[in-house]
Amino acid sequence: MAARSAGVLISPPRHNVVFGGKGDLVFTIGGTIGEGSIAGFRVYETFNGPRHEQVVAVWSTETAELQGLVVGSRLGNIRTGAIGGIAIRHMSSPSVRTVGVIGSGQQARTQLEAAALVRRLDHVRVYSRHEQNRCTFSAEMEQRLGIPVEPVDSPRRAVSEADIVICATTSRTPVMEAAWLKPGVHINTLGPKTVDEHELGFDIAAAAHLIATDSLEQTDAYKAPFFLRGSPDAVRLVDLAAIVSGRLPVRQAHDQTTLFCSAGLAGTEVLVASKLLAASGGGKAPAA
Amino acid sequence: MAARSAGVLISPPRHNVVFGGKGDLVFTIGGTIGEGSIAGFRVYETFNGPRHEQVVAVWSTETAELQGLVVGSRLGNIRTGAIGGIAIRHMSSPSVRTVGVIGSGQQARTQLEAAALVRRLDHVRVYSRHEQNRCTFSAEMEQRLGIPVEPVDSPRRAVSEADIVICATTSRTPVMEAAWLKPGVHINTLGPKTVDEHELGFDIAAAAHLIATDSLEQTDAYKAPFFLRGSPDAVRLVDLAAIVSGRLPVRQAHDQTTLFCSAGLAGTEVLVASKLLAASGGGKAPAA
Repeated sequence: MAARSAGVLISPPRHNVVFGGKGDLVFTIGGTIGEGSIAGFRVYETFNGPRHEQVVAVWSTETAELQGLVVGSRLGNIRTGAIGGIAIRHMSSPSVRTVGVIGSGQQARTQLEAAALVRRLDHVRVYSRHEQNRCTFSAEMEQRLGIPVEPVDSPRRAVSEADIVICATTSRTPVMEAAWLKPGVHINTLGPKTVDEHELGFDIAAAAHLIATDSLEQTDAYKAPFFLRGSPDAVRLVDLAAIVSGRLPVRQAHDQTTLFCSAGLAGTEVLVASKLLAASGGGKAPAA
Repeated sequence: MAARSAGVLISPPRHNVVFGGKGDLVFTIGGTIGEGSIAGFRVYETFNGPRHEQVVAVWSTETAELQGLVVGSRLGNIRTGAIGGIAIRHMSSPSVRTVGVIGSGQQARTQLEAAALVRRLDHVRVYSRHEQNRCTFSAEMEQRLGIPVEPVDSPRRAVSEADIVICATTSRTPVMEAAWLKPGVHINTLGPKTVDEHELGFDIAAAAHLIATDSLEQTDAYKAPFFLRGSPDAVRLVDLAAIVSGRLPVRQAHDQTTLFCSAGLAGTEVLVASKLLAASGGGKAPAA
């Protein structure tokens, strides 16, 4: 976010190559320019199979050295979680205590974990369509975070008392209504958000006083238009980096609602991979 | 080439991302569709540094499995050499015996090696600006191929008696003239070939009866236009795969000259990597 604010983050929209009806290879390419700069990419595929591996590669642009490769899907989840945590840190009220989660996948886990790192949480409720999944999520996250994580049997029960809502589903239709939410709530949406398929409805966007995303390049480049395209709320979409750097204010009143639309900022996987490689001793970190 | 002829090769032009003044990441993404199909990419960088590593990755599109990764620059050279060898096999006269090489780098080596695999060569002459380089090339290739490889002190001496010419330089201006060449010669050009920077001049193209490339997608997508753009010879550029599949004839008379412009066919690195990974036991090869 600092690099982006300083204008030294390279973060073009994703690059897709279609392999007939088999699926796509999807590249997020990015990095930084300037002192100690790095370049690289993450690539994932959408082929049909039981297992999916992503690859992240990092080069130093100073020495042309390949710092290393990271294989697996964990890094992508950590990075998306980290960005969600930054959104929560800079957009939610410091006094938030309860989180409502809809969805029980890896994205829901890393978002919640990041929330717990930036806010003093005391209660979490989770809803997911399958009881088994929400119970597994609950048990696992309770142990990991050391606070109660309660599985609930409706999305409304998950979010109605929450100060923060994490929506991380694959749903193509809205999973909650603005009317269910507390005033002053902050929402992170991770799932589908195109005009025709979106896990949150236009009512949520309309109710939000501030709507931000990590990558305006990406929301502008969605194959199907971003869900706010054509709505009066589209022009209100702002860059998270501008909030983080203090150039945009967040809340003028405690009952104002905020919405963060996670799009996937290019270059961030590369930065995370660079730090991981340096920390693991598996690669040499550039100076920055 | 068979996959391309059958319309099942995915081979879009390269994808570049610019990192300020530091250089680019350049992706060649491709593969096959249909039975036993694979997908992947090669990526290289143009940053300033003493060492450069490329990465090639291969997935099965049938199972979504990451078959493996190949790091280093050798694979790219092997693949470019292999395509050059296919051009020589299908475009040069079967009776060719002598090769003239201009350039002494890795591309020159793999092109010559491939030529020796598809034709019964008895003599090679090599020119390169630095005497040391052409002597090293000569000694190394003589040992590898078991035929005389003679370093010569002018490009004209290298090519004037050659049945095959391999031009693999980084020169931005023509390194030979059409008038120096024997009738019936076949030429592979590996180096720069844009309108403003080209290792072969327009006279060579004008003299050629047949001009082919491995990737029309790539020559169409060069940042600076392909060197024949705007010339009357541009429309004569044909696809090597059409020659290989027998759909286009090569020589009607023994004195007709042929020119192959190596552009870098996407998907070929991925196919070579897939075979290498399968042969090394380091990956599981798809059925094809």
